[in-house]
Amino acid sequence: MAQLYSSVKPTPMLKDELDIVIPTIRNLDFLEMWRPIFEDYHLIIVQDGDPSKDIKIPEGFDYELYNRDDINRILGPKASCISFKDSACRCFGYMVSKKKYIYTIDDDCFVAKDPSGKEINALEQHIKNLLSPSTPHFFNTLYDPFRDGADFVRGYPFSMREGAITAVSHGLWLNIPDYDAPTQLVKPLERNSRYVDAVMTIPKGTLFPMCGMNLAFDRELIGPAMYFGLMGDGQPIGRYDDMWAGWCVKVICDHMGWGVKTGLPYIWHSKASNPFVNLKKEYNGIFWQEEAIPFFQTVTLPKECTSVQQCYLELAKLVKEKLGKVDPYFIKLAAGMVTWIEAWEELNSPEGTEAKAKAPKGKND
Amino acid sequence: MAQLYSSVKPTPMLKDELDIVIPTIRNLDFLEMWRPIFEDYHLIIVQDGDPSKDIKIPEGFDYELYNRDDINRILGPKASCISFKDSACRCFGYMVSKKKYIYTIDDDCFVAKDPSGKEINALEQHIKNLLSPSTPHFFNTLYDPFRDGADFVRGYPFSMREGAITAVSHGLWLNIPDYDAPTQLVKPLERNSRYVDAVMTIPKGTLFPMCGMNLAFDRELIGPAMYFGLMGDGQPIGRYDDMWAGWCVKVICDHMGWGVKTGLPYIWHSKASNPFVNLKKEYNGIFWQEEAIPFFQTVTLPKECTSVQQCYLELAKLVKEKLGKVDPYFIKLAAGMVTWIEAWEELNSPEGTEAKAKAPKGKND
Repeated sequence: MAQLYSSVKPTPMLKDELDIVIPTIRNLDFLEMWRPIFEDYHLIIVQDGDPSKDIKIPEGFDYELYNRDDINRILGPKASCISFKDSACRCFGYMVSKKKYIYTIDDDCFVAKDPSGKEINALEQHIKNLLSPSTPHFFNTLYDPFRDGADFVRGYPFSMREGAITAVSHGLWLNIPDYDAPTQLVKPLERNSRYVDAVMTIPKGTLFPMCGMNLAFDRELIGPAMYFGLMGDGQPIGRYDDMWAGWCVKVICDHMGWGVKTGLPYIWHSKASNPFVNLKKEYNGIFWQEEAIPFFQTVTLPKECTSVQQCYLELAKLVKEKLGKVDPYFIKLAAGMVTWIEAWEELNSPEGTEAKAKAPKGKND
Repeated sequence: MAQLYSSVKPTPMLKDELDIVIPTIRNLDFLEMWRPIFEDYHLIIVQDGDPSKDIKIPEGFDYELYNRDDINRILGPKASCISFKDSACRCFGYMVSKKKYIYTIDDDCFVAKDPSGKEINALEQHIKNLLSPSTPHFFNTLYDPFRDGADFVRGYPFSMREGAITAVSHGLWLNIPDYDAPTQLVKPLERNSRYVDAVMTIPKGTLFPMCGMNLAFDRELIGPAMYFGLMGDGQPIGRYDDMWAGWCVKVICDHMGWGVKTGLPYIWHSKASNPFVNLKKEYNGIFWQEEAIPFFQTVTLPKECTSVQQCYLELAKLVKEKLGKVDPYFIKLAAGMVTWIEAWEELNSPEGTEAKAKAPKGKND
């Protein structure tokens, strides 16, 4: 029902329970377009590359900013698990957040419009996705049964209609699609103009390519598995950070009985990255994913793993054991996974909050 | 490229390789709306209920019509596997078809419009779905990668991009959604007005509620598994015919490495059936599906089963063994499954074509 007598601005959903994490190497002018949507939320900006460079943040945003020096200072030797010169560094922001939910977005992503021309509040849709259950155990042909105007269809077992807790909401992109270098090279002009008005749960047992460009998750639930790996500087691979996290997260969500949604909301992805540069970064990954994906498709976690941390350490062990044979890189990555959990525990234990407190250059400095 | 100098009507896709199967108890006036789309195709009409009743078919359609007397005459004692007084009888049409593809539609389904107001050629979209590969082994977040303007996203393994053969195309419904009786009772006014512009593959290992209202499949590939079970007259259950077929078909497609797509095309479903009548029909199914679905979710077919017929007979054996304990109905159903395969083989062996020839009351009688 329309509220006829009130013009009070509605409280932004979960504004005190969600941090927005943005990895960047440049001035964050893109935030201007997001101002009406983001201004009531807290931002965690992870500055990649040269820490002596000053990054300009538009006025009026509530933020903390970490550069490489901050990461080294806070994590000490454990900082080795955080990638450098790669947007994988964003996962440091997940670790230092004190909130229940995270939304992470790239700085070349803008507000998209739905087919009616209305600007899409991506954050609001992510929150709706996270706060409503998922349906990982049986497919609903009318997509998300918890959306307005939808429900479970005939033949959907009643015992499964409570759904599962949602851990991840994976949003999509209009304009520049998230293609790999070979596809970019072959189809330089392809743009995504298809607005698919759906949110759906990725079924249990099915892996998906998780893109970190427009992604929200329940940090308290799945945060310790949202490690974006070792990419970029000094590593033989890039652009597989979110993929790696996606494989790990999905396997652990399946084990824990949690749901992963994909679909709405869309953001407007403005600029295609350079396919030649990308090919260099992806090159090894193109081969390695052919081994890594079957590994994740068949891996099973023991029943004894009842926390995400336990699952993740078990996964690290199996990565070392099975994928270590594919390339020594995976042995290093498995060690990084262990370090990540140690650092996570350190910062997120009751004492860890102190370490967090000595952190950022924020707007109140 | 636009054909500038020709106004020749394009040949309807697969017109000599596809039959349209319609189960009905009434005059087929609904065909008028489908005339531009269906007129070049052959129809197989399966008349349910009183065989002495005359069913009027609009002029100009190429059809054959079978009533209960025809079914009994053609199948003899094996006619027991074909349901009576239930739209499950439609599967008789799959059996007598001589074509590679089947499209089946209910007679209360009309041509829907897309959001731009354009009438949707549902048949054409189904054919596109069937003729392009599926992606059952890994999820593509931009949906069907074989549609115009789409592709595989970053992180999709290159070895899987050939896709799999598509066996089934499951279309959806605008207006009256396909809800069960309890949901109909609770939400009598709910209408589906959300047009989701997507076709997607249901991942391997995931079951779905297959609705028979707007369904196409490759009969040569999966036809022998498209048995709609024992429903209606003399049976303790109705409205689970398509669900049963869907569970069996999905398990067998997964075993054979074939794909099942869902999504576009939409039809306009005009009239909600009576929820009280439906509740009576569904009542047992509501309980039984709680046992049947876990059975199908965990069933594995032996490697030795290399044809759909072998898979289906193996499934019949397991149904008897496992679900027979739930209710004696499943023992009868398992026997029906075996009879169905026997009848299928009889009609679809080289000699079987004779039996088919002595069949129908068609427009050329």
